Amino acid sequence: MIRDLILKNRSYRRFYQEVDIKLETLRELVDLARHSASAMNAQPLKYILSCEREKNSLIFRHLTFGAYLTGWPGPSEGERPSAYIIILADTETSRFVDYDAGIAAQTIMLGATEKGLGGCIIANIQKEGLRKDLEVPPRYEILLVLALGKPKEKVVIETVGPSGDTKYWRDSKGVHHVPKRPLDDIIISYIKAERESRALCHAILFGPSAAR
Amino acid sequence: MIRDLILKNRSYRRFYQEVDIKLETLRELVDLARHSASAMNAQPLKYILSCEREKNSLIFRHLTFGAYLTGWPGPSEGERPSAYIIILADTETSRFVDYDAGIAAQTIMLGATEKGLGGCIIANIQKEGLRKDLEVPPRYEILLVLALGKPKEKVVIETVGPSGDTKYWRDSKGVHHVPKRPLDDIIISYIKAERESRALCHAILFGPSAAR
Repeated sequence: MIRDLILKNRSYRRFYQEVDIKLETLRELVDLARHSASAMNAQPLKYILSCEREKNSLIFRHLTFGAYLTGWPGPSEGERPSAYIIILADTETSRFVDYDAGIAAQTIMLGATEKGLGGCIIANIQKEGLRKDLEVPPRYEILLVLALGKPKEKVVIETVGPSGDTKYWRDSKGVHHVPKRPLDDIIISYIKAERESRALCHAILFGPSAAR
Repeated sequence: MIRDLILKNRSYRRFYQEVDIKLETLRELVDLARHSASAMNAQPLKYILSCEREKNSLIFRHLTFGAYLTGWPGPSEGERPSAYIIILADTETSRFVDYDAGIAAQTIMLGATEKGLGGCIIANIQKEGLRKDLEVPPRYEILLVLALGKPKEKVVIETVGPSGDTKYWRDSKGVHHVPKRPLDDIIISYIKAERESRALCHAILFGPSAAR
């Protein structure tokens, strides 16, 4: 069931760094993205893969892991990602790239989850530094970095409370809590029904003939 | 296997319109998106659902189905989508919405594919007309429309030819052909290796001591 995979696919930021990920695994994941939808089928996305220690360190230092976890500088040595997939846009191909990148990122993360891996889609990137270190030609825009590894933390989903605060947080036992909005808060489908119920309330309060 | 689902999840534009989709099915699909990643966990996306004939027609007329299929005005009555999920951004919540929308769209389409449905992620929308007809408040920006139904066409994936043309096309039997770039064309991972091979070529051409 895709639902099980989606629920299992959480954002992880700490890993068993000693568990290697093969280049072939990364290629299989990109191949899933390759077979996914692209605006006007233009396929402007390109990918940089990394699963070697040296290249991984080069990438790691340009990333921010979990902006809300104040005081936490990101995963320490030994708990860092084993691999990265960097999603780039070929600016000479198409300007419609952001939806494509979201589609590709989710596809790759679901594929990784199925393989017993996990990770985090990172947009908080020091792009110019990363470009310089990896010698990325100006033609390619860095969009997202997918950090991948064997997850070493527990993530639980909760419901957003009355305060409306959606910030994730980590408890004293290191469990990561993620508040999600309830389903009925994100569906605004019943526009007509809502309008009618508002009209009804108005009539009850002010009488059926009151101007609206 | 997620790969099977991803391969099955093609962009479909003609449907068995008589096959209804229940509101509960649409809610289940949005619930999958609800459990997916969101930048800074801000969850700015909202959804409008439609599976009724009248509302579907209202949405349909603001959409362009398959811009490359010149001379085809979109699916005719009887082959139109049975349902829609409109993805909106709550502009008061976050400005990072496009990756979220791509993630949500792919999640929903994979969920729909598993249910034997299919459809098309549409960004080519006459947004102001749609906003007016559905009375969408200015607070919400219309991002994508997901058209859903029971697919009534065959879609095949091919490899992009030497011309580099990525336009999809429909043959005389109505089969829809989609050229995808080869995996090795979209991975630019081997930057260091490429640099070294360029240096080697340079040395072969101009001698090992030539200035580079």
